[in-house]
Amino acid sequence: MDFNYEIRPVGYVRTPYKTIDDAPRQGRDKPEICEIELLPEYLPLAEGLETRRRLIVLTWMDKADRGLARIVPYGTGAKDPTGIFNTRTPNRPNPIGICNVELVGITGNVITVRGIDSVDGTPVVDIKPFIPELDS
Amino acid sequence: MDFNYEIRPVGYVRTPYKTIDDAPRQGRDKPEICEIELLPEYLPLAEGLETRRRLIVLTWMDKADRGLARIVPYGTGAKDPTGIFNTRTPNRPNPIGICNVELVGITGNVITVRGIDSVDGTPVVDIKPFIPELDS
Repeated sequence: MDFNYEIRPVGYVRTPYKTIDDAPRQGRDKPEICEIELLPEYLPLAEGLETRRRLIVLTWMDKADRGLARIVPYGTGAKDPTGIFNTRTPNRPNPIGICNVELVGITGNVITVRGIDSVDGTPVVDIKPFIPELDS
Repeated sequence: MDFNYEIRPVGYVRTPYKTIDDAPRQGRDKPEICEIELLPEYLPLAEGLETRRRLIVLTWMDKADRGLARIVPYGTGAKDPTGIFNTRTPNRPNPIGICNVELVGITGNVITVRGIDSVDGTPVVDIKPFIPELDS
């Protein structure tokens, strides 16, 4: 395969959710404190991030089934399957999760946030500042 | 490398922007009509998407420099470099772009939208419904 299409973890989430069944359907507004443990080589990339209030954290949901076409969306009351792209299921061809989180603080290579819904140990693949004019 | 960390394009964007210099810094609220051409095998995954008003389109910015730590953010008035994670530059370890777009229509495997800022031909790697309670 083309090396340029390889996802590289930049860190890992530390959450209270040990299994997929423990994890909330969405983490938004959940009070749990979670951590992003950045790999040391990516620490310089987080410079300036401490000035932000909200971040977009992208995860790679490595337990996902990447081969599904349709699913009955969980927790929405729907009974019929719909296309994967019409849902927020982790089971997608590229299992990239988006969490809009509240920044609590940064100490060394640990970014503390509220609002991650991922299973403990899930790879983090990107962090971006949340910019309301672009994202909402 | 671990095959599970391979990004797989599900389609390609068709935009009026032929080079990085043509592309707007952000596509949000730009009037240009753009298309997402889904690869035929991913068409069933778009079922039900026609009921949505806004979508989050994830792209893989394959022209990006993945090795940078800091950058002077473009178009913000800033003069000093800051960490890559504190900016929305395409040049990131995993060059995943997030576009919040307005759905115009779907015909066959072509999804017509407003608000993509990517260069023509950029791979699309995921499409999600935009859900204001989660994303803004």
